[in-house]
Amino acid sequence: MDFLQYPQPMADLISSLARLPGIGPKTAGRLAFYLLQQPQVSEDLAKAIVVANRDIMKCSICSNFTDRDPCALCQNTQRDQTSLCIVEHPRDVVSLEKTREFKGLYHVLHGVLSPMDGIGPEQLTVNQLLKRLDGIKEVVMALNPTVEGEATSLYLARLLKPLGIKVTRIAHGLPVGGDLEYADEVTIARALEGRRQL
Amino acid sequence: MDFLQYPQPMADLISSLARLPGIGPKTAGRLAFYLLQQPQVSEDLAKAIVVANRDIMKCSICSNFTDRDPCALCQNTQRDQTSLCIVEHPRDVVSLEKTREFKGLYHVLHGVLSPMDGIGPEQLTVNQLLKRLDGIKEVVMALNPTVEGEATSLYLARLLKPLGIKVTRIAHGLPVGGDLEYADEVTIARALEGRRQL
Repeated sequence: MDFLQYPQPMADLISSLARLPGIGPKTAGRLAFYLLQQPQVSEDLAKAIVVANRDIMKCSICSNFTDRDPCALCQNTQRDQTSLCIVEHPRDVVSLEKTREFKGLYHVLHGVLSPMDGIGPEQLTVNQLLKRLDGIKEVVMALNPTVEGEATSLYLARLLKPLGIKVTRIAHGLPVGGDLEYADEVTIARALEGRRQL
Repeated sequence: MDFLQYPQPMADLISSLARLPGIGPKTAGRLAFYLLQQPQVSEDLAKAIVVANRDIMKCSICSNFTDRDPCALCQNTQRDQTSLCIVEHPRDVVSLEKTREFKGLYHVLHGVLSPMDGIGPEQLTVNQLLKRLDGIKEVVMALNPTVEGEATSLYLARLLKPLGIKVTRIAHGLPVGGDLEYADEVTIARALEGRRQL
């Protein structure tokens, strides 16, 4: 590694930064130099990391990241307590909340089934999900449209349907503002499959 | 800002990350979630930032970042003590050292003259440079080929030449493996200007 030429504390900083997703050794070097040149920025960042690690936990009900348990969404009695939206990551909750379309509760799986990577239902929050189905009438699957996401949706649907719960999935199709010419075949096929009467 | 929907410690982490160069709010969000999911990575990173900030200083001679003063390069008596290469940033020292072409000493300016941004010679390490010219026969300017870099090279050359020091500049031209078709006019003009007999 060429950053072995750096003084040790700097090489350590660069390799720590390079472990972040999407940050290669070059970017890590640039960030490290920036952090050394801006002591205030780096002090704030170190503090923010420590505080977030200390204060952020998973909600005991929905497994979303939160600073109090249960989280604000689970505590909110104004929300529809009969519908539950299942997502992969905490960030998906934010994406969905921004639309202001869904008024129910969430459940964060923290991943999808992926037998190749050793991720089965036990590694996800499936047990917590099964424990909170009292009073739930509809479960909306909002997993990413990947092979693993699909398989996970089908797996959960098979668990939930026998309990008399309506299981739906968010629509797959052309993104708004997208162009048919640049859409892939699978997306177009899904869009056709999901066509609705005007 | 849409990350106000996050719990406070998380919003703080995201905004701290978003202050890094080249990291926008979306990437900052992704990194923050990653850090929360990988407590070991984030603990190491916070520690590395704190240690680097505590232990890394500017060398009192060349102003390069170092963990001991004077730095390893300045202490190395094997290096040519009569030639001095002037660079903008500590990372430029690493880039030059990788080539193993330059055997002399370095001087890091920590920026270039930029009157628009209020950066004059006092904000750079020009005074330290003038104090270490005893015995220096050649000064190599290796600043970036920007307008400010050029202006700074010319400014320093005007200070150094009256002292009987040979002032040179690294060549500007086509990068090796580059393509004339995609090179900009200024680079091609410089390449022509700097042509040498074969």
